[in-house]
Amino acid sequence: MSSKFKWRSLFYQSLLNTKMEKYLADFADKLNDWDTCGNVKEKTKLSKQLASLPECNNVQLDINDIVSIASDLPLSEGERRKTISILKQFMPWRKGPFSFFDIHIKTEWRSDWKWNRVLPHIKSLKNKKVLDVGCGSGYHLFRMHQAGALQIIGIDPTSLFFYQFQCFKRYMPEQNIHFLPIGIEAMPSTQYFDCVFSMGVLYHRPDPIKFLKELKQQLAPGGQLVLETLVVEGDKTTVLVPNERYAQMSNVWFIPSVKALIVWLEKVGFEDCKCVDIGFTSTDEQQSSEWMQNQSLVDFLDPENHSLTIEGYQAPLRAVITASVASTK
Amino acid sequence: MSSKFKWRSLFYQSLLNTKMEKYLADFADKLNDWDTCGNVKEKTKLSKQLASLPECNNVQLDINDIVSIASDLPLSEGERRKTISILKQFMPWRKGPFSFFDIHIKTEWRSDWKWNRVLPHIKSLKNKKVLDVGCGSGYHLFRMHQAGALQIIGIDPTSLFFYQFQCFKRYMPEQNIHFLPIGIEAMPSTQYFDCVFSMGVLYHRPDPIKFLKELKQQLAPGGQLVLETLVVEGDKTTVLVPNERYAQMSNVWFIPSVKALIVWLEKVGFEDCKCVDIGFTSTDEQQSSEWMQNQSLVDFLDPENHSLTIEGYQAPLRAVITASVASTK
Amino acid sequence: MSSKFKWRSLFYQSLLNTKMEKYLADFADKLNDWDTCGNVKEKTKLSKQLASLPECNNVQLDINDIVSIASDLPLSEGERRKTISILKQFMPWRKGPFSFFDIHIKTEWRSDWKWNRVLPHIKSLKNKKVLDVGCGSGYHLFRMHQAGALQIIGIDPTSLFFYQFQCFKRYMPEQNIHFLPIGIEAMPSTQYFDCVFSMGVLYHRPDPIKFLKELKQQLAPGGQLVLETLVVEGDKTTVLVPNERYAQMSNVWFIPSVKALIVWLEKVGFEDCKCVDIGFTSTDEQQSSEWMQNQSLVDFLDPENHSLTIEGYQAPLRAVITASVASTK
Amino acid sequence: MSSKFKWRSLFYQSLLNTKMEKYLADFADKLNDWDTCGNVKEKTKLSKQLASLPECNNVQLDINDIVSIASDLPLSEGERRKTISILKQFMPWRKGPFSFFDIHIKTEWRSDWKWNRVLPHIKSLKNKKVLDVGCGSGYHLFRMHQAGALQIIGIDPTSLFFYQFQCFKRYMPEQNIHFLPIGIEAMPSTQYFDCVFSMGVLYHRPDPIKFLKELKQQLAPGGQLVLETLVVEGDKTTVLVPNERYAQMSNVWFIPSVKALIVWLEKVGFEDCKCVDIGFTSTDEQQSSEWMQNQSLVDFLDPENHSLTIEGYQAPLRAVITASVASTK
Repeated sequence: MSSKFKWRSLFYQSLLNTKMEKYLADFADKLNDWDTCGNVKEKTKLSKQLASLPECNNVQLDINDIVSIASDLPLSEGERRKTISILKQFMPWRKGPFSFFDIHIKTEWRSDWKWNRVLPHIKSLKNKKVLDVGCGSGYHLFRMHQAGALQIIGIDPTSLFFYQFQCFKRYMPEQNIHFLPIGIEAMPSTQYFDCVFSMGVLYHRPDPIKFLKELKQQLAPGGQLVLETLVVEGDKTTVLVPNERYAQMSNVWFIPSVKALIVWLEKVGFEDCKCVDIGFTSTDEQQSSEWMQNQSLVDFLDPENHSLTIEGYQAPLRAVITASVASTK
Repeated sequence: MSSKFKWRSLFYQSLLNTKMEKYLADFADKLNDWDTCGNVKEKTKLSKQLASLPECNNVQLDINDIVSIASDLPLSEGERRKTISILKQFMPWRKGPFSFFDIHIKTEWRSDWKWNRVLPHIKSLKNKKVLDVGCGSGYHLFRMHQAGALQIIGIDPTSLFFYQFQCFKRYMPEQNIHFLPIGIEAMPSTQYFDCVFSMGVLYHRPDPIKFLKELKQQLAPGGQLVLETLVVEGDKTTVLVPNERYAQMSNVWFIPSVKALIVWLEKVGFEDCKCVDIGFTSTDEQQSSEWMQNQSLVDFLDPENHSLTIEGYQAPLRAVITASVASTK
Repeated sequence: MSSKFKWRSLFYQSLLNTKMEKYLADFADKLNDWDTCGNVKEKTKLSKQLASLPECNNVQLDINDIVSIASDLPLSEGERRKTISILKQFMPWRKGPFSFFDIHIKTEWRSDWKWNRVLPHIKSLKNKKVLDVGCGSGYHLFRMHQAGALQIIGIDPTSLFFYQFQCFKRYMPEQNIHFLPIGIEAMPSTQYFDCVFSMGVLYHRPDPIKFLKELKQQLAPGGQLVLETLVVEGDKTTVLVPNERYAQMSNVWFIPSVKALIVWLEKVGFEDCKCVDIGFTSTDEQQSSEWMQNQSLVDFLDPENHSLTIEGYQAPLRAVITASVASTK
Repeated sequence: MSSKFKWRSLFYQSLLNTKMEKYLADFADKLNDWDTCGNVKEKTKLSKQLASLPECNNVQLDINDIVSIASDLPLSEGERRKTISILKQFMPWRKGPFSFFDIHIKTEWRSDWKWNRVLPHIKSLKNKKVLDVGCGSGYHLFRMHQAGALQIIGIDPTSLFFYQFQCFKRYMPEQNIHFLPIGIEAMPSTQYFDCVFSMGVLYHRPDPIKFLKELKQQLAPGGQLVLETLVVEGDKTTVLVPNERYAQMSNVWFIPSVKALIVWLEKVGFEDCKCVDIGFTSTDEQQSSEWMQNQSLVDFLDPENHSLTIEGYQAPLRAVITASVASTK
């Protein structure tokens, strides 16, 4: 592991001599001042925690349902306690699960369940360039790597998730997997990626059509979108906009039916739109743990009737839609 | 009538010594190059037509259902023919009706019908500052003047409508009625107006929530919004997004039910939202004429069944909603 | 006198319906935040002092060598004492002399002496548009008014001078004399003025050629520059750049000979360059007073030899050069 | 030699993991559109010429007074003729001499003579970071490399010189020598370089003080400036500003005496300023050739009196000044 781990340099390096090089200025401009903007105090704290994780050589990355890193030499009991204490500074851990030198991070979500349901339905990621919009901890980035993707970029403006990802990335600087702490509106229109994922973002956007257009602008001709979002049951004209909160979340705007969402996708120019997975989230797939001690799904549902949220809306139903952009422009 | 009619100077003048003066730079910046940007050829042509309208003194403005300007001396038959020919350069005339020195301009819409239905339901405009977003020819600006408004600004990015308005405005440079050829996204956040109208715009926006927020940012504390848009019948979760065209219009995005629209308005912070007028547009209220020779409503409906558009959607149903922003911030 | 004296509104008003209107956005942009930027505390203080000057009606402006304002009713002894106390808040008073309701403001400079030497040599200002770059208290702006100029703008970035000017301007809001608290680099390239004055600025600029170009960009075709600056004796290749201070001033860069300065002027495109006044400043023309209690010229000269500064350079020799730009472009 | 020679990628690569990385956005922003801006037709032509230079492996760089590249296999007679023809597309060749696969490029200047005079007087370049402002063909960049410099950047906005440099650089992509086709005003304030050269630029600047400040902003604490410019004989107050042309050059502004120039340098904060080389340029050092067929020095001098230019000014006298910035800030 490099003691001078520089995530920006590694990312810029990955752009050189690719079609993305022309966006170097855009990216560098967005990323330049990241350490010193926003909640600097928090970033400085997390940055120090990150740097105090154990220094290990010969770190092995092992990806199955659990994304694991491990070393030849196990951590001593003292190191282990210290490491757990550091990792807990990065709570809440939402997307996972992970294993960090034999420390099992039981995240809020069994993100592997969704991955396993979705993977069979999408085009092969082998040697592909992939973008994950709203990537959270980056768990799925590693799964994309496992699936053979060549160049993998995740974006998410939440600082905490950035640091969660770096806990792992720092042990594999050479891997072409990068997390940029930016939102999609900060991305240049690359039309570069073979596959763009966005899971769990659309319903947080007050402007879902603009968001779908932004996703489209990242796709190369012939590329595929994999979009996961909350949906409601209903026909082409069914769209729930919750009055205030939905399942306790205050920033939920548009929850369309699958049919309505497909109309939207087609209207912005996507083709071949299909729902490849749909289901009510179970309280097994999303639950609190030692690593995510906030309330979770079970607390957001009507205790008397799990088919409703505590606000009385339909309980969270999540769908995965795949869609494509035309092969030639 | 001034032979040196300068609409920009008149508008800037109207801002001096008001709370809007601080936005002088913003407005001047947007308006500066208007003559020489966009479709310059078209603008130059229309500008010349405008300048060749008859020069008359003692022009009287008379506002009833028909917005009229007239002079002591009637136009000669030759002048009349020439004037009709000029005014027809500004076709299609959509919002009206107008009378221009005894020439009756029969517009596509009987905009007076809507005005008369709506006026009883809104707060008095007496001595108020009013903004009309998407004002078209500006017909309603004159009706607001008739209703006693003190300062009246209409905005609409369509050049043709700008010139239609100037056909009248040039004879009344002293009136505090102004048309700015800009869209609402070009407006600074003034929080200045007592009443903001927007009629016939929302369904053209792919981002209706952003639009509602933009309208809100123009309202002073306690101000009132008067919003007219296409709606569909249905409950809180009914929102039609037409696949391609709706009543032959290609740029239609979100058509909510009244109930859904009220949820949206409340969600962005409006209060006291009420539907004050709703109805299917009749082919009497919207029809072609000598002054608007394109197809009109009758052509956009299913010939067999006027309750449907030719695409098979519900025929155009239009609602007017009033809503308020809180009195104190 | 208006109790709602708004210098910006008055200036913007003066631009409407002139060729300068197109720069309204530029000016408004520069002036917008003036009250709330820079040394806000100082500005707030001076602004309050300004507002507490006596309210008088029928204020008469009387311009001779002394620029005077007076009222029918003399100030009471108490008012007079208070007014003197307020005016002294605006010290040091450098350019003058002024008389303010019978209070004589004895400024550091007898600016009238220079004016009287120069005026006979320049083109008539009758009905001209005039700009004074680095106008100080604005004393010369009033003299330009006396000389018949139609539109008079002074610019100077020093806040104190701005407030000195406003002490007088507030009693004559209707006069077309305006002080903008900006430097010349903030001016759009107007090519508008018939005469541009700049007295006492050039030697403070590290880039005198750029400054001459900036002055030129303010002149209409055929317009005249009146440039006053420190010079040294010498030939075309004589330019003094003082090592550190010159006559105690730390920000002095280039002091050319008259011949060198004329080469510079010609090189940037001026024509018909002439030195119309040159002389060593006397300690009578520049001296301390009750209204300017800092050190003045006598303190900056070698006490043994008044032909030298205390640093050993040639004593301040000041020249006035006139130059023109071509009539047609 | 790489057939995919990418000068930008190579430069960006050189910045990664150095203190210059933070300026990546600035540089990429300036360099992004270089191929497609300015005189695109000319650039496209020269770019094609560049690409048609011979492809050789095992190219050896050999730097003596002549900067040479050579290959194991000599060019065939046909290749040689073709190569000469290509290289002549990049005429005029001013700074040199060069040898290109045994083709001797006899440049206008014997730049090696100046280098050899100056090198003994400057601090060692061994392992230093060096910037050459106005580097021309980049001849001196190679000499800096020979002298042991670690990282070498030349900047010059003239496209032709850029392509001259690339004729050589393309055979040594791995060398840390880079030419950026920008002027110094486009450089961020790096305070990075141990040594900044600027030879033959100052007298072309209408704002020499600003230029000296710009040079200073590129120097790390303790760094050294090597400044070569035209000078005149004279004392501290002697500065020639030629009326129109100087030695036929139309863009000559300030030619100070050495003493005056040292005052300027000290005034902007340089220390330890010394003139290390001065002399009238001989017509042997600067002359036309088959590779630079324009007029040269001999044509710019008074034919009767080589101590004068044809305009009657003192003949070109060039001085090299070294100066330092303080070690600690």
